[in-house]
Amino acid sequence: MHSQPIAIDPTGSADDSPAREVTVALLGGGTVGSQVARILTESADDLAARVGGRLRLTGVAVRNLERVRPGVPRELITDDVAGLAASGADIVVELIGGVEVAGELVTAALQAGSSVISANKALMAEKGGELHALAEQQGVDLYYEAAVAGAIPLLRPLGDSLAGDRVQTVMGIVNGTTNYILSRMDEEDADYAEVLADAQRLGYAEADPTADVAGLDAAAKAAILASLAFHTRVTLADVHCEGITEVTSEDVAAARDMGFVIKLLAIADTNREGDGVCVRVHPTMVPRDHPLASVRGAYNAVFVAAEAAGEVMFYGQGAGGEPTASAVLGDLVTAARNRINGSRGAAASTYSDVRILPIGEAATSYYVNLHVADQPGVLAEISQVFADQGVSISAVRQEGQGDQAGLVIRTHPAPDSALSATIEQLGLMGSVKEVVGVMRVVGEQ
Amino acid sequence: MHSQPIAIDPTGSADDSPAREVTVALLGGGTVGSQVARILTESADDLAARVGGRLRLTGVAVRNLERVRPGVPRELITDDVAGLAASGADIVVELIGGVEVAGELVTAALQAGSSVISANKALMAEKGGELHALAEQQGVDLYYEAAVAGAIPLLRPLGDSLAGDRVQTVMGIVNGTTNYILSRMDEEDADYAEVLADAQRLGYAEADPTADVAGLDAAAKAAILASLAFHTRVTLADVHCEGITEVTSEDVAAARDMGFVIKLLAIADTNREGDGVCVRVHPTMVPRDHPLASVRGAYNAVFVAAEAAGEVMFYGQGAGGEPTASAVLGDLVTAARNRINGSRGAAASTYSDVRILPIGEAATSYYVNLHVADQPGVLAEISQVFADQGVSISAVRQEGQGDQAGLVIRTHPAPDSALSATIEQLGLMGSVKEVVGVMRVVGEQ
Repeated sequence: MHSQPIAIDPTGSADDSPAREVTVALLGGGTVGSQVARILTESADDLAARVGGRLRLTGVAVRNLERVRPGVPRELITDDVAGLAASGADIVVELIGGVEVAGELVTAALQAGSSVISANKALMAEKGGELHALAEQQGVDLYYEAAVAGAIPLLRPLGDSLAGDRVQTVMGIVNGTTNYILSRMDEEDADYAEVLADAQRLGYAEADPTADVAGLDAAAKAAILASLAFHTRVTLADVHCEGITEVTSEDVAAARDMGFVIKLLAIADTNREGDGVCVRVHPTMVPRDHPLASVRGAYNAVFVAAEAAGEVMFYGQGAGGEPTASAVLGDLVTAARNRINGSRGAAASTYSDVRILPIGEAATSYYVNLHVADQPGVLAEISQVFADQGVSISAVRQEGQGDQAGLVIRTHPAPDSALSATIEQLGLMGSVKEVVGVMRVVGEQ
Repeated sequence: MHSQPIAIDPTGSADDSPAREVTVALLGGGTVGSQVARILTESADDLAARVGGRLRLTGVAVRNLERVRPGVPRELITDDVAGLAASGADIVVELIGGVEVAGELVTAALQAGSSVISANKALMAEKGGELHALAEQQGVDLYYEAAVAGAIPLLRPLGDSLAGDRVQTVMGIVNGTTNYILSRMDEEDADYAEVLADAQRLGYAEADPTADVAGLDAAAKAAILASLAFHTRVTLADVHCEGITEVTSEDVAAARDMGFVIKLLAIADTNREGDGVCVRVHPTMVPRDHPLASVRGAYNAVFVAAEAAGEVMFYGQGAGGEPTASAVLGDLVTAARNRINGSRGAAASTYSDVRILPIGEAATSYYVNLHVADQPGVLAEISQVFADQGVSISAVRQEGQGDQAGLVIRTHPAPDSALSATIEQLGLMGSVKEVVGVMRVVGEQ
């Protein structure tokens, strides 16, 4: 039930009324917005055939009226963003970004009875719950495929195609900047700072790269993915987040020596009992023959393990004007079809009452690299520390001698808290000269 | 508009009526059917929450009443498949396979006003057009996610998420049996016959493997994928089909030497003018660093290139009871939500008037391996044959001497017919002792 149904005959089929039209208001005329406007114009006939009615752009709200925006018809440009948001267009597309202002605009649009399409991960990760509730109440659609992993069709498959299955793990590379940096560190044996500077020069990283390299961008996407996959509401504050700023070229080289590659992964998985979900972002060692290992550069990929479906992976470009516009257009076509049919898509289901687990309860394997004293009994002593915390060791390699003596240890999965406690203990031991490297590991068979 | 709407209050929201129920009739109680029945029972509460009403199984039609079927309630089993198909259940799930009988059952179900879910690729490839038209006329859903690439959410993303974009190429590994055989030939340097026998012993290949190894299974899936991606109607008869029976261990080794791996690909792409689509299945050399190259064993993957989205890939298990059941359940949840909302999903759009192009018009690169006379001027003579057909050579390698003299040639993309004509000419030349290998190549940068 729309509070403001569009003025069409709701009983006819899509083919017999050439006059059907769906109005679209665009908030934001930047990189993505211009591409959306361009495709709306250039592919108007195709889109009309797919929708069953024509999409008509009613306005493009921008901050700077002076800037030339190729692909955006001049007469549609306005700086009255609040007015356009509340204009009651069939569909409002929010491409402004940020949380506060965008949240008010989306709220106003939903209140005016518009379906809303957003590419705003921060907004959805923080206020997704209330916005979904408002959309539900208004009987309109709220879609945001473009908010996670750009052009990769991911949210709809998670919500629809796997809707009859039980997801166990969602795990992915969802930030192109950090993947680009880590890929180059791996391929060129380069330092973090060096590659970051180069990435900034080439436009792959922002002048202030914090949101990317600290993992915050990935954390927002993790919250959205976890919400959909586990039919619950996960917000940014629920996500444990570690970035890549501490990853050294030594870590990368050590991983390579063992047949691993380091990736910044967003991970959400259930506990053994199935009543809790842990959502986190951190650098992770992945075996080189794992499908996620070969995802290089600015590409994104998300790996889903479900009870019946088994392992499924989605791969593609995670950012950029055109790929993001493609995801927005896909949502637009679906929302427009729904307007014409007088229906709405399935609401995001949040019926499950799984708990959000702290990182300490996540089951993880660790890789630990220690610089140790070269004396008899060290391995026994160190092994005992792991055993005391209930952490089982899967492999140990002794390296070097004398001053260079080292131990490389890999563990079986154990609660993250037990592993943290183990590392803390190791740091206090006289026979451990230095904890050289610690990293979580996933994807081993 | 349903011809037989289910007996619910169509004006309420999904949450306020606990009595809502969606009836489901299952045609087929084999591997997939048993899994569907099991999940319907075991996950009943979850599914009810996702659907907004309970799914009630009204019957499971089987051929053999005597066989024990774990997970299928005994009292629901019947051998009156025609009766159950026409029973007017909200949703009829067809898991019988074959074209004629299954086609009649699906037609009967649609005529009775049921939405239909099918895992039957042969049926959809041959009669998809008329069945879609009937579903449209009846105002019901017809879904078949399970028909292509098992559990991989693929058809919905193609139809919905990429609906605002223009697909240029769909290219995939959609048959697990042939991928298993080719993977093992590559990994073990083994013969086709040897690996096939082993695959039959292990249950990866049927006793009569023709449908798989001749490429027919892949061709049916190619027809379905092409129809959805290009918004047109492609049937099995439109697909050019070559299987893997002629692929030798020499071909596999030669590919490996050049950094390629041989895959049986289903390919559908547009011509340069965008007014034609060519759909084909054939063994193809793929560069080892292409995302499709690392898809091994019984896994499937489909690669989509679209104008705005760029390259997107979907990866997962292509067959098996549980993965296929997961896809069926995803369709079931969507169709059931639509029943409860009194709506239906988007129909497959077939508005585009692209021509189906013969294989001769496909743009392909070739790899050609020749055994030649070791005499001056042979390369010039052979190069002239390519030039006469308008085929541009991208690389040539001379190998061996005397009786062992050979040429390995790679071409730039050219019409397939020009390449066929070139090969025919080469076979007639005195200086060409033997055309040792010819294979199409895709995915080079």
